[in-house]
Amino acid sequence: MDAKVRLYVDQPLGAGQAVAVGPEQASYLFSVMRLPVGAGVLLFNGRDGEWLARVVDAGKRRGALLCETQTRPQMLPPDLWLLFSPIRKERTNFIVEKAVELGVSRVVPVTTRFTQSERWRQDKQLAHAIEAAEQCGATHLPQVADVQPLTQVLADWPAGRLLFWADEALAGHAPALSGVFAAGQPAAVLVGPEGGFSDDEKARLRALPFVRPISLGPRILRAETAAIAALVLWQSSAGDWR
Amino acid sequence: MDAKVRLYVDQPLGAGQAVAVGPEQASYLFSVMRLPVGAGVLLFNGRDGEWLARVVDAGKRRGALLCETQTRPQMLPPDLWLLFSPIRKERTNFIVEKAVELGVSRVVPVTTRFTQSERWRQDKQLAHAIEAAEQCGATHLPQVADVQPLTQVLADWPAGRLLFWADEALAGHAPALSGVFAAGQPAAVLVGPEGGFSDDEKARLRALPFVRPISLGPRILRAETAAIAALVLWQSSAGDWR
Repeated sequence: MDAKVRLYVDQPLGAGQAVAVGPEQASYLFSVMRLPVGAGVLLFNGRDGEWLARVVDAGKRRGALLCETQTRPQMLPPDLWLLFSPIRKERTNFIVEKAVELGVSRVVPVTTRFTQSERWRQDKQLAHAIEAAEQCGATHLPQVADVQPLTQVLADWPAGRLLFWADEALAGHAPALSGVFAAGQPAAVLVGPEGGFSDDEKARLRALPFVRPISLGPRILRAETAAIAALVLWQSSAGDWR
Repeated sequence: MDAKVRLYVDQPLGAGQAVAVGPEQASYLFSVMRLPVGAGVLLFNGRDGEWLARVVDAGKRRGALLCETQTRPQMLPPDLWLLFSPIRKERTNFIVEKAVELGVSRVVPVTTRFTQSERWRQDKQLAHAIEAAEQCGATHLPQVADVQPLTQVLADWPAGRLLFWADEALAGHAPALSGVFAAGQPAAVLVGPEGGFSDDEKARLRALPFVRPISLGPRILRAETAAIAALVLWQSSAGDWR
């Protein structure tokens, strides 16, 4: 049975488990995708792995699926947070999508001195994260935090977590990155807004014991490129790409 | 003198060199940005480094700049090509922009069995590349090739250049990436279209002596994410990010 659709649901999954389908998903599954009774759907809920389920009821506004077999075990992303400043809408959406694909455990939008946009719709961004997880085959869903001032996030910083900061002052100096990231150590990556960080923010970051500046090459990267690059470097040396 | 504008020009640059400003750039510099005579502009042409120039004539449809001092030496990106399949317009533009930011010497669009879009406007993509170079502080401009069938590009492959292929079959197997990339060796990165490569294409790629499969982690990355990730990994281990 070939499943054309992969769907996040917020219900328990397991052998013989029935899954209720609400109005929105019924419309997608049975009207848009035209799945008949008996068709296969892949389901994940962020806890129970991925399951192949079969359509057993396909109504206009409701339906039901029945889980058959587990197709992937539950996989957790490494304990990596992404801290970034919301930018223009399209590029903010892009950062959230890429963070899910590349594999983070938590997305943390922060406002800084030069943040251009404080607009952050937590519900919409969670929906973006779900869509990205459905597409990339992830079985987890990262936490999507509400927007907070960077100063607050730094003041509440949890013990034992390192913060890798893409410091634009290092552009062109290109120190070795190898050896900076360590597997098994809770980590976070911080990228700034367009315009970078203020002098005060930079001084504060440099003074914090859990902050590790990193370089992302000799050119100035846009915020979304810096976010992706830092996540790729961390994943390939300390995360689940090894 | 603080320069607010950074511009690519196709004219020689050097101390005391005058640079003619045509209608389009005159409109941007003198109407949109409202630069007066005496204002500073940063110029690069891909050959002579970056120069600070001063506006000496600011007409409606023409103008002139005079180069004063070199502000950056000419930097060449590593000899790295990006081969990718054109996708939806917005994401194709995005790939070209990121390739310039991350630093490649040549952008090579290729059509494959599952290429969704063969639309490739070489002139428009060159304009995108120029805009990205202006923004990211690069002094070079990558070559932007016209679209060609992948089979043709592989048949004409130059001796001595390795082709790193983001092989989706390796997703989840995650072999070590370290040691695959070597500095000083001409290289190229190949990412497929949505839907990946056909079985024939995969067999052909695996059989070619210059092809090196690489893994980009356990999740399925979209085409543009795979392109960025592969470029970041190459740059950080063999390119100019070291």
